Amino acid sequence: MTTQDAERAAMDRALALALNGPRGLNPQVGAVILSPTGDVIAEGWHRGAGTNHAEVDALSQLPAGGARGATAVVTLEPCNHRGRTGPCSEALIAAGVSRVVYAVEDPNPAAGGGAERLAEAGVEVVAGVERAEGEELLASWLETTRLGRPRVTLKWAQSLDGRAAAADGTSQWITGPDARADVHRRRAVADAIVVGTGTVLADDPSLTARDESGALRGTQPRPVVIGRSEIPGEAAIHRHPKAPLFYADHDLGAVLADLRERGVQSVFVEGGPTLASAFLRAGLVDEVLAYIAPVLLGAGRLAITDIGVGTIGDAVRLDVASIQSLGDDLLMIATPRAESKATGYEAPGREGVR
Amino acid sequence: MTTQDAERAAMDRALALALNGPRGLNPQVGAVILSPTGDVIAEGWHRGAGTNHAEVDALSQLPAGGARGATAVVTLEPCNHRGRTGPCSEALIAAGVSRVVYAVEDPNPAAGGGAERLAEAGVEVVAGVERAEGEELLASWLETTRLGRPRVTLKWAQSLDGRAAAADGTSQWITGPDARADVHRRRAVADAIVVGTGTVLADDPSLTARDESGALRGTQPRPVVIGRSEIPGEAAIHRHPKAPLFYADHDLGAVLADLRERGVQSVFVEGGPTLASAFLRAGLVDEVLAYIAPVLLGAGRLAITDIGVGTIGDAVRLDVASIQSLGDDLLMIATPRAESKATGYEAPGREGVR
Repeated sequence: MTTQDAERAAMDRALALALNGPRGLNPQVGAVILSPTGDVIAEGWHRGAGTNHAEVDALSQLPAGGARGATAVVTLEPCNHRGRTGPCSEALIAAGVSRVVYAVEDPNPAAGGGAERLAEAGVEVVAGVERAEGEELLASWLETTRLGRPRVTLKWAQSLDGRAAAADGTSQWITGPDARADVHRRRAVADAIVVGTGTVLADDPSLTARDESGALRGTQPRPVVIGRSEIPGEAAIHRHPKAPLFYADHDLGAVLADLRERGVQSVFVEGGPTLASAFLRAGLVDEVLAYIAPVLLGAGRLAITDIGVGTIGDAVRLDVASIQSLGDDLLMIATPRAESKATGYEAPGREGVR
Repeated sequence: MTTQDAERAAMDRALALALNGPRGLNPQVGAVILSPTGDVIAEGWHRGAGTNHAEVDALSQLPAGGARGATAVVTLEPCNHRGRTGPCSEALIAAGVSRVVYAVEDPNPAAGGGAERLAEAGVEVVAGVERAEGEELLASWLETTRLGRPRVTLKWAQSLDGRAAAADGTSQWITGPDARADVHRRRAVADAIVVGTGTVLADDPSLTARDESGALRGTQPRPVVIGRSEIPGEAAIHRHPKAPLFYADHDLGAVLADLRERGVQSVFVEGGPTLASAFLRAGLVDEVLAYIAPVLLGAGRLAITDIGVGTIGDAVRLDVASIQSLGDDLLMIATPRAESKATGYEAPGREGVR
């Protein structure tokens, strides 16, 4: 086996080890220490904020001097940052490691610089080994880091004319079974599912991800309820396989920050209209999923209410990524244009139909 | 030339003659009389309600006895009905015509039966010669006859969340230039364009069909305004190349009946929301064109208001024929399901996303 092959195999192992750690504010990271002859002599992974980073965890498996001349294979660039733990770059230098191989650069400006510090100290540094696999492992964390908060997907169902319910409050049949199944598939890959207390009181949703037979899927989002109204003890949400989180706080930024610390990197906001509109108003929506039933109601609760837009030039413009049919219904997937509200963006050359 | 060839050529001529007549409550019909040897000896067409039908118009070109043994080639089955004029079947029999060839059956139960009456009298009858061409000529009249009123296309523009205007009333930029051009193309092929007085007062629309350069298209819809509010003399609509019609009547069925008598077979309803909703509520919409801008407003005037739906099971369900992109916007073309309101139709197995 060449050095390159041995290091690739070690990186595969490090990526697998990373998954032992929890998702949270910190990334999942794995590390493998190879002897100068290319044998695995230690393994480690990060067990969550405040505990040893993966490299240090691996080094701690070795006796003093045991890493002299060794190669450290790490899924993420070693940090150069003194947080609750010391910088990994210094630990690797102190242990006498002579070569460091990593997959993904640390995107955190406060933590980055590890590779440079190592190189300064005469350690050989190789970046980007199995970078694609490393980025895939960290995709959700990298995006959360980029956004500074969990990624927010906002979903709602509406009639063509924008209603979430009919005049008498009925909404059961707005969208059909194919749209429902699609929602359940998407719930299963979200870390959390967020609703307002109004929706819990009105619909008593279970907030679980289920398959076509109605059985629970293998992964479940954490249910999150925002609002000040009291939720009765017999509400279906209390029977969710994951304990629900309740926030009386209406500061959605603070809610998202708390969820991020709990390891939530993707949030699926299901409404109702008041909560959906609050997320839009706060500019906290990364993706919109609008399930549109080809029906007209002409009255009843609106899917979207006040989002702080007073005039047409301030409309929240969406970039439509796709429109697909789901049975009789349509699903529009779109991204709010960042500049549309913030900078008073106006598309050129548009005018009304006269 | 065989008899068949001669009759086909005569039918082509009769179809061309039909276009000389006006569109109106009565169909456009042409007729050619062929001598027993296959020569054209007379031509005629229908000049509108109360005047001679095409066959009689053609026969009147001939001296007494001139049609004996002749063949009458007519675009529509001769009528068997005594209205303001006598039945054509009797006129053809009395003139001694021995063979009648026509393209399209008369769909009107009160006027039909002409072929049978002719056959009873010993006249040879051949139906369906150039039927496709005949139906194409009469398509709009045949549909008006089937519907019992002009065909109604309802168009509106909305934000994704169902708004026709922002909170401050601005709506100029909801949809873009491609959607506008599409509307103008469709206006040009409609017989009439219908708006409410509210829209005239709010937007002062010209209601013309224009091309991309802003020039008037070759054909223009008749502008029609419904409502009780007074329209100022300087309104743009008064400069339309066709004189506008005004109806203070809110009985849309009566308005459509009057338009039909005036030869209007297709109507393009452009709103505003009150008029659009009134057409939907009355079940008088054959086709919906919803131009959807991918923007969110969250407040402002709604594109569709009260359509008489109180509960979700009574929603007006649409069969979506197509969704197309027009620049940034979408156009949904759909047909209201006849049974959705009238019979309390409920799609089986649909339920809410829970």
